[in-house]
Amino acid sequence: MRSLHFTADTSSDGVRERDFTIGEVTGVLRSPAPAPASTPASASASAPESSSTVTGPASGPERAPLVLLGHGGGGHRKAPAVTGRARLLVTGCGFHVATIDAPGHGDRPRSAHDEREIAALRRAMAQGEPVGPLVVRYNAHLAERAVPEWRATLDALQELPEIGAGGPVGYFGLHLGTAIGVPLTAVEPRIRAAVFGLFWPDTLAEAARRVTVPVEFALQWDDEHIPREAGLALFDAFASAEKTLHANAGAHAGLPRFEADSAARFLARHLGRSATAPV
Amino acid sequence: MRSLHFTADTSSDGVRERDFTIGEVTGVLRSPAPAPASTPASASASAPESSSTVTGPASGPERAPLVLLGHGGGGHRKAPAVTGRARLLVTGCGFHVATIDAPGHGDRPRSAHDEREIAALRRAMAQGEPVGPLVVRYNAHLAERAVPEWRATLDALQELPEIGAGGPVGYFGLHLGTAIGVPLTAVEPRIRAAVFGLFWPDTLAEAARRVTVPVEFALQWDDEHIPREAGLALFDAFASAEKTLHANAGAHAGLPRFEADSAARFLARHLGRSATAPV
Repeated sequence: MRSLHFTADTSSDGVRERDFTIGEVTGVLRSPAPAPASTPASASASAPESSSTVTGPASGPERAPLVLLGHGGGGHRKAPAVTGRARLLVTGCGFHVATIDAPGHGDRPRSAHDEREIAALRRAMAQGEPVGPLVVRYNAHLAERAVPEWRATLDALQELPEIGAGGPVGYFGLHLGTAIGVPLTAVEPRIRAAVFGLFWPDTLAEAARRVTVPVEFALQWDDEHIPREAGLALFDAFASAEKTLHANAGAHAGLPRFEADSAARFLARHLGRSATAPV
Repeated sequence: MRSLHFTADTSSDGVRERDFTIGEVTGVLRSPAPAPASTPASASASAPESSSTVTGPASGPERAPLVLLGHGGGGHRKAPAVTGRARLLVTGCGFHVATIDAPGHGDRPRSAHDEREIAALRRAMAQGEPVGPLVVRYNAHLAERAVPEWRATLDALQELPEIGAGGPVGYFGLHLGTAIGVPLTAVEPRIRAAVFGLFWPDTLAEAARRVTVPVEFALQWDDEHIPREAGLALFDAFASAEKTLHANAGAHAGLPRFEADSAARFLARHLGRSATAPV
């Protein structure tokens, strides 16, 4: 097993953020910031709006459930949508939240294959051609590489005392985060609940039929890329006895913000953690 | 306009419950119970688990949004599901919540037509025949009678100082509550947001196409009475720019309890009232 190395450790607005590497994979672990220790007289008693401090690894956060948070295609572990959802999960639910850069994303190098697929996607977008088939193909390739990376990351994170083996684990990822998360959840028994959405069934329905944990699934009712029937078919494929579809009026990019709140409540319900703040 | 007469006034566990009549229509208005006045020395300082007191009409609750809460077929204004949802809306959101008995339901007499339709429904159920067409037909008839009753009720309730004219009004009703609520919302501009679900599109799609306020719509993915395509078709028919479908795995009667929480949050968001307790 490859071991985890923390490369940076900052805290801001109640969220502690630790960058890490596991082999060639770059990731970030976000956790509730530890309560301020008794401060020396030289420190300001009232923190500034957004404080950033480097703290030693000794001041570990309390044990709490872990959420694996996947980013979307073209994004990375610190993309705004990822950071916003992570903050909601950390400050609203008290979770630890881990995100790794997908292959060819974020701080990770692109292969020649990545470059070719991205070029094909850009050509299709520039020419107004359908991108669905290209996204489906490329993301299936990324998922093959990312699933074992997530499993190795989970192994390493569960060695941290504040996470531990046997604790509840959830998954939350849309778009590419669903393309990776569905096959991951199908093979990873440590994941007990998952939030997915905004993807095609073509390469995922078979894995979805092996997912039995509670699922919350989001789709856009007027999605210009993913046909309505395709989104419904992917939701239908999950074998889970408890699954909920949230379909909102609007285009592909129009997922309402309240769906992130809903995902946080769903994960809090299933990972055995009450929401500590209104989400 | 027929005037409203209060016929009973009790408070229990933070909810004040006032039965009323408007002409031949029987209803109930639930509101946040007023904060206990300075109690005389003879009263116990610590209230029992469920206290029931009669208070005078002078101690009016504060002004707050009004939710019209419809009951299901065969139910009435004090059916357990109605009482539970009303309690959630009153104690969780601070709303006033009104429910009237549908024609032939609760404390209202059945006509010969009601008796014939109910007998037909019972025969179909006893013989294991489909009840959908009978429910659709009878509920459309009930809606024709109930829509003007709800509008007269709204007129009368808005004369109460704690509700007032011009304040935000929402609607929440499933089953028969949707069969009545969709045509009501289509013609009643005072309703600004509505929660519907668990009904067929046959007699409602046309009215739904005239509904433009935000809608949250619930259906059961494995409903043995309402075909999946029928539920999706009714959701699709709403003209609302903001509409959300919540589809849960499970049979007709299996709507998860957390959907009532979701409805309360939806109404709180749209009627301009923050949830005051976790819902």
